[in-house]
This record gives sequence, C-alpha cells and structure tokens, in this order.
Amino acid sequence: MSDQWTEPVVAPVPAHEPPYYVVVFTSTRTGDQSGYGETAERMEELVKGVPGFLGMDHARTPGGLAITVGYFRDADAIEEWRADVEHRAAQERGRSEWYERYSVRIAKVERSHSFAGGGHEA
Amino acid sequence: MSDQWTEPVVAPVPAHEPPYYVVVFTSTRTGDQSGYGETAERMEELVKGVPGFLGMDHARTPGGLAITVGYFRDADAIEEWRADVEHRAAQERGRSEWYERYSVRIAKVERSHSFAGGGHEA
Repeated sequence: MSDQWTEPVVAPVPAHEPPYYVVVFTSTRTGDQSGYGETAERMEELVKGVPGFLGMDHARTPGGLAITVGYFRDADAIEEWRADVEHRAAQERGRSEWYERYSVRIAKVERSHSFAGGGHEA
Repeated sequence: MSDQWTEPVVAPVPAHEPPYYVVVFTSTRTGDQSGYGETAERMEELVKGVPGFLGMDHARTPGGLAITVGYFRDADAIEEWRADVEHRAAQERGRSEWYERYSVRIAKVERSHSFAGGGHEA
C-alpha cells in the first residue's frame, strides 16, 4: 500500500507552454445527485476525445464548493467541447437537477509554472 | 439551523464583467502542515487588501487535490500581490514545507457567466 502523503494518487496537471486556455467551473450542488456520477464519468471520457484537450484538475470540499479546471490548446478546442451534443444535454440536466449555483470562466493563460518538491521532477 | 443543501454556506464567486484575470493554483500537500492554517488565513486577509482583488474560490478533496482560484481586475493587481513581502515569505515556506507539488496559471478571462438554480438570483 502506498503512503498517501508522499505518493499522492492525484497530482496537479503540470503547466503547459502558453498560450493555452483554461475553463474554470466552480459549483455547489443540490441534494439530488442521482445520475451525476455516471454522467461525470461519461463527460470525462468524452472530453478526452476532443482534439486540443490537455487535461483536467478537480477538487471538492465535502458538502461545499467543487472546482473543475480544464486545459485546452486553443479556443477552437473549447468551442468543439461546448458544441458536443451529449455535453449540452448533460449541462441542461445539471442546471435542472444537480447544480445549486455555478460560475464558468474561459481564460487565456499568459504565464504558468509547476513545482515538485522532495526530489520529484517538475 | 440552515439546510446545507438548499442554503450552502459557500457559493461560487459570481462572474465579473470581462476582461479580468484569474490565478489558478492547484496543489497537493506534504505530511507536514504545521503552521499552514494560520498562514493561509493571514494570506486571505492580506490579499483582500490588494486594490483590484475581486474574490477567491477554494476547494479541497480530502487527502487529494486542492484548487484555489483568485480573481483580479488586471495584471497590475496580480503583480502587486506577487510582490508582497509577507506573501513571498509564505510561498517560500510553502515550497520547503507544505506543498508536494503545485501548478500556477495566470490567465485573462475572455468570457464568464453564472447560474443560480431554484429561484436564486444569479
């Protein structure tokens, strides 16, 4: 069994070379989460097929805020993901069932860097 | 007592009018978190005093990834925050003690919007 402190299962997606884009999605959820897990898994699978998709980070405070950050090579990649029919249906269901509130920001990365301590390579 | 599902204590920071900036900080932590909480509180207090600071969202998966997103009116506001002496000292301590890995992205928001369900005003 690995030591969760020194060998985290998840690691932040390392910085890419700018310019690229981030989509920052911050949300709180309703009490009705039926079907959410399956849909989230399906969306993760789908977005990986979008040309120009670079990766994704996700964190959620139990009972509190969730933040998902998606990384994309350019605005066209984001547009393709926005236009995906299955994604649009999931968003619609999210608004009517799963999300209490959310904000979305699409932003162009100007600078980025990564750090890895304890002898890890950045 | 409020119902945590319909009246969340936290809510995502609503979208501002672009252009503005986001600083996206994704991290995993080491096993040594002594002093982290006090420093994080102090940094939150300090950043609120930076002209052009618009707000902050934070989420953390227990034992996993943490994501902090800061919103700033312009690049000058971020520069002022970067140059803060107390902030720089905290970053240095973070690298040597608290963070296993992190990535930082500074990005200019081109589009953003918010949603509030269940009769909440956006």
